Amino acid sequence: MQHFSVTTGKGAYPVVVGCGAWKELRELVSHGYSSIFVLTEKRIWNRWAGDFNRESGLELAPVVFVPSGEKSKSLAQAERVAGNLLKHGADRHSLLVLFGGGVVGDLGGFVASTYMRGIECVQVPTTVVGQVDSAVGGKTAVNVGAMKNLVGTFYPPVMVLADPRVLGSLGLRTFRSGLYEVAKHTVLDGIEFFETFERELDFLLPETAPKLEGIVARAVKVKVDVVNRDEREQSLRQVLNLGHTFGHALEEATGYRRFMHGEAVGWGLLVITLLAERLGYLKSPAGRQPRPGRLPTKSQAGRGDGSDAERIRRLVWRIGPLPTIRDVSPQAIVRLLPHDKKAIGGTIHWVIPERIGKVRIVPGIPLTEAETAWNELRALAPNW
Amino acid sequence: MQHFSVTTGKGAYPVVVGCGAWKELRELVSHGYSSIFVLTEKRIWNRWAGDFNRESGLELAPVVFVPSGEKSKSLAQAERVAGNLLKHGADRHSLLVLFGGGVVGDLGGFVASTYMRGIECVQVPTTVVGQVDSAVGGKTAVNVGAMKNLVGTFYPPVMVLADPRVLGSLGLRTFRSGLYEVAKHTVLDGIEFFETFERELDFLLPETAPKLEGIVARAVKVKVDVVNRDEREQSLRQVLNLGHTFGHALEEATGYRRFMHGEAVGWGLLVITLLAERLGYLKSPAGRQPRPGRLPTKSQAGRGDGSDAERIRRLVWRIGPLPTIRDVSPQAIVRLLPHDKKAIGGTIHWVIPERIGKVRIVPGIPLTEAETAWNELRALAPNW
Repeated sequence: MQHFSVTTGKGAYPVVVGCGAWKELRELVSHGYSSIFVLTEKRIWNRWAGDFNRESGLELAPVVFVPSGEKSKSLAQAERVAGNLLKHGADRHSLLVLFGGGVVGDLGGFVASTYMRGIECVQVPTTVVGQVDSAVGGKTAVNVGAMKNLVGTFYPPVMVLADPRVLGSLGLRTFRSGLYEVAKHTVLDGIEFFETFERELDFLLPETAPKLEGIVARAVKVKVDVVNRDEREQSLRQVLNLGHTFGHALEEATGYRRFMHGEAVGWGLLVITLLAERLGYLKSPAGRQPRPGRLPTKSQAGRGDGSDAERIRRLVWRIGPLPTIRDVSPQAIVRLLPHDKKAIGGTIHWVIPERIGKVRIVPGIPLTEAETAWNELRALAPNW
Repeated sequence: MQHFSVTTGKGAYPVVVGCGAWKELRELVSHGYSSIFVLTEKRIWNRWAGDFNRESGLELAPVVFVPSGEKSKSLAQAERVAGNLLKHGADRHSLLVLFGGGVVGDLGGFVASTYMRGIECVQVPTTVVGQVDSAVGGKTAVNVGAMKNLVGTFYPPVMVLADPRVLGSLGLRTFRSGLYEVAKHTVLDGIEFFETFERELDFLLPETAPKLEGIVARAVKVKVDVVNRDEREQSLRQVLNLGHTFGHALEEATGYRRFMHGEAVGWGLLVITLLAERLGYLKSPAGRQPRPGRLPTKSQAGRGDGSDAERIRRLVWRIGPLPTIRDVSPQAIVRLLPHDKKAIGGTIHWVIPERIGKVRIVPGIPLTEAETAWNELRALAPNW
């Protein structure tokens, strides 16, 4: 079991990673809440309610369900959940336990932050993305129309409990989708974590979930460290957006139907690496020319030219097959790039890798460069 | 012109009261916002846009309208406004100017606090209630179903600008409705402000709006002082709920159609005064028995027994006629009292006047006492 602490403007909250983390709730619920509610999705709850209730001691807490899927991240759904909480007597001193993936965490966090102007909540993430990324840091969000996460709040939970056992019931694609976010964390963090991930990647599968504690905890630490230095995304926290500027545009261009979020981030990491090479930010090893655009073929995996760019690409490529981007034109992508919420006055703040372990914020790269990089990636992308 | 300062967890913001307060925007808008938007209602904007734009220098700011009326305080409307802001290119460094009454202030504040997880906003209240109460303190809210203000945030504006001239275009009933909140503030504050209000009350009319600066500023100061000591309604801020526990129940019992908010607070002040007398909290002058339940008839106005209870009742009564409560049964009211958001674990925290200038929080008064007080009021209420 590993414990981290996230500092916020209102104090600190613990993030606990490990098998058995849910037991930490037993102590919390003795804190005199007037009532406790669980917000979750049917599928994950059906599988894990027994274990969770036994370990957390929450057998008697009323359960409110949200339908699965991104569509539930809406203000209409927030209204429905708030109405349900009111009907069951939730007041300002109630606690809301968010047991689920990104939808439950983002929507539920938003409801907690606004119900009667804020009630306390605990994040119990049940996906890789949730555990290593979205449940830590206090960002909540719902979508408005086609704009993901347009409306939300910064609202720290009182506790985050990430038990890797729960990842064992994820489908392979959902599981892998989270690994792209882990890959992003390794690029941000440095060569040691990157090489650990390289080594263990082939053994990371839902069925080995209980053994994921080390990787999950390491990835959580990356997020915790960044958030501790910049709770409200004034500057440093922007680095977490690595791969996301293209990723969000790709999700929007394909109507949020083709890609899981992590998969779009996977493509985003590949293209931003190409762009960084093109612009000379990401250096090749001494004495060799950069080789922009080279994606390894299957037979080349494990070899490559040894440059950081090459290693990043190979790592992303090894995680698994990605849905195609062949039919997504550079015009479509480039048109959507300025929709990024981090854009200020129309200027995109790009997160550009300089080497494994170092990124730089670069405002205002010409969109023609982004277009070219996208075209290169499209031409070179393998047909899985 | 009078300046106050409200301290929050994130710094302080100014509250400026006086004719010409809108000019303060000129300095603010030079702060490098990426864009500036005005959120308002058609009727008030049509009347004041010329003056406001000339004085504030905001002639070029795009204007987003919300329909008049309490129905606009909904998550659906928040979604529409957020979508409109996005369409017009609002980003994280945009400023939202909220020009209007409680609906614009509460809804717009909620949108500002959640759009891209928070953009800055300026409150420019245009009603008495807005100027002396709701625009100061950083509470934002929307309604969910029949539950007023169920969802909201604590989110301080960067500035509050209350120009009393704008009150000149209010209808008499809307204008008077705000005076009940002023009456509440005088009871909280003390005998000096109370007697000033008693003296000036007959001259407070929309047509004398520019001369309201003194009264408005004094009432704002009461609010500012309370909020400065308790931003997040941990305890002290509860005193502002004086008259509101009954008031909210009365609004809900009549489907939010019969009463303006301030009018319901007017009745709430009358009944809480009766209840305080019944329970012995509100003392009569030495040597005399309390005379619970006595409302002055028109001919008695200005006389009375001189007790604080009597003076509070007479003041509320003088503000103007109130829509009837004759048909609102005590059962209906008492059933709705625990819906009060300040109730914790089902226990209502009553704000009980002890004398003019002093209230006390009393948890858990028997509802039978509340029922009796309501019945007394109902029997004694004049038929305006």
